[in-house]
Amino acid sequence: MSCKVVLAQNISAQYRDELKNTIKARGIRPKLVGFLANDDPAAGKYAEWTAKTCAETGVEFELRKCSRNDLEDKIVEANEDTNVHGIMVYYPVFGDRQDQYLQNVVSVAKDVEGLHHKYVYNMYHNIRFLDDAHAKKCILPCTPLGIVKVMEYVGVYNPILPYGNRLHGRVVCVINRSEIVGRPLAALLANDGAKVYSVDINGIQEFHRGVGLQLKRHEVSETTLKVEDVLPLSDVVITGVPTPNYKVDSSKIKDGAVCINFSTFKNFDGEEIKKKASIYVPAVGKVTVAMLERNLVRLYDYQTQGTSTTA
Amino acid sequence: MSCKVVLAQNISAQYRDELKNTIKARGIRPKLVGFLANDDPAAGKYAEWTAKTCAETGVEFELRKCSRNDLEDKIVEANEDTNVHGIMVYYPVFGDRQDQYLQNVVSVAKDVEGLHHKYVYNMYHNIRFLDDAHAKKCILPCTPLGIVKVMEYVGVYNPILPYGNRLHGRVVCVINRSEIVGRPLAALLANDGAKVYSVDINGIQEFHRGVGLQLKRHEVSETTLKVEDVLPLSDVVITGVPTPNYKVDSSKIKDGAVCINFSTFKNFDGEEIKKKASIYVPAVGKVTVAMLERNLVRLYDYQTQGTSTTA
Repeated sequence: MSCKVVLAQNISAQYRDELKNTIKARGIRPKLVGFLANDDPAAGKYAEWTAKTCAETGVEFELRKCSRNDLEDKIVEANEDTNVHGIMVYYPVFGDRQDQYLQNVVSVAKDVEGLHHKYVYNMYHNIRFLDDAHAKKCILPCTPLGIVKVMEYVGVYNPILPYGNRLHGRVVCVINRSEIVGRPLAALLANDGAKVYSVDINGIQEFHRGVGLQLKRHEVSETTLKVEDVLPLSDVVITGVPTPNYKVDSSKIKDGAVCINFSTFKNFDGEEIKKKASIYVPAVGKVTVAMLERNLVRLYDYQTQGTSTTA
Repeated sequence: MSCKVVLAQNISAQYRDELKNTIKARGIRPKLVGFLANDDPAAGKYAEWTAKTCAETGVEFELRKCSRNDLEDKIVEANEDTNVHGIMVYYPVFGDRQDQYLQNVVSVAKDVEGLHHKYVYNMYHNIRFLDDAHAKKCILPCTPLGIVKVMEYVGVYNPILPYGNRLHGRVVCVINRSEIVGRPLAALLANDGAKVYSVDINGIQEFHRGVGLQLKRHEVSETTLKVEDVLPLSDVVITGVPTPNYKVDSSKIKDGAVCINFSTFKNFDGEEIKKKASIYVPAVGKVTVAMLERNLVRLYDYQTQGTSTTA
């Protein structure tokens, strides 16, 4: 079998080591506060996991539980507390609209998840810095950013091309177009030069920067293509379908494709995909958490130094 | 314009520096003899250029001119001379068959061009070492090897995949199927895991190792495809058409493709290709000469040490 299976822990290791060394060498103690205002056992698990990995790298993590009606005040309190450097919320709390409102209550300066409108706007518009001097990079949402790092690690990004264009020539299929991961991911990849087929149950959109990357940021075109049309065209297939029964049709995947799953369910048939893919990444969670901590250190630096050396 | 133009001199620099440093540090003086037995002004130019670049890296180069009827005896003499470490011949001398005979007269131990039947056979059969202990890598022909190095440099080879499979998932179109460059190149790339469309005026063949690289070495299938069918499918387009008027149809090339020309004529329209390609390599000659010298140092080591540290 020629397929190389790459585990998230091998990818995250370099980032975690770097974080640990940085925190230790500089003698800093960045503090992250997580707000849990729901009874979702998955959120509770994620909070436990965050606590564990933060402890390993030297980040101070405090989980604050509250009722959903108290959450807004608690966030404002943390915004104003100079001992807190990063804030995250375990969503969903209310549901779409009010949760989106809460995302904008979190201070831009402390938003480790990159969910504030300013970051979301900048990401979609391919604006990569907060300041004109380009000293402060924007915060990107952790899962899409983690998937970018996975794609760098497995060689999909071409480092010989200029920063910002390193996916030029790559065709990527993203099966999931949620506002949390799929749509921002498609935009990030297209902004980096890929042609992206963004798939959801309503159809397929194409995110791209035009022939020869003539556009500075991506645009979106509607297509009438089906999944079975775009899979054979795709160098990279990324799945995030949150149901146990969904499986991508391996027979349609291009021989030698790179396949990445970010769903908590296995969207690829483990045996079949290894017959077709050159590289298979079955999960990305550990890279996501490393990115959360990385965003925290970046924001810590902005708050204390006005810039950051985190690359 | 988002296309990155990569010049051969930038790619060859690392190999030339490495050669120069190795030769100096080890205090060795490998000797290459080139035989010129024709009046072709291009061969004379190539001989001058070889002499110049050898002088720069510390290789001793001696050009020996003779009549074509004396050539065989002169090669045998050089084969037996322990002061000569590498031998090359400026072809054509007679024409196809007798030249191929002369290629096998050059000792395997001194064949810097990798044209001896043993090397050619091993290359087509994906046999990478001369010995069971894997201490002695086979010599590969200089231009195909140079193009492999160009493809490594510009990021087409994926270093995260195992050695020997690093082109898995890449589709390459090679326009030229000569025995000197095009056919060996198609075989090398397919042996490394690519799907290769090998184009000549008689049609297109596909070189590949099957789905999931199930074959240990490439096989060749005939196709009824045309150039206009395979260009849009190809991540990499490599041209070597030796006529001034031939140009690839840029409009058919996949957006973001890597385009490499090894012909002495410009087979890509320089302006048009920059609108489509992510990377354009207009010539490879300097990398070819670096590979010639690299092969020489490798053979020098085999003759003097039985193995080589040249990677």
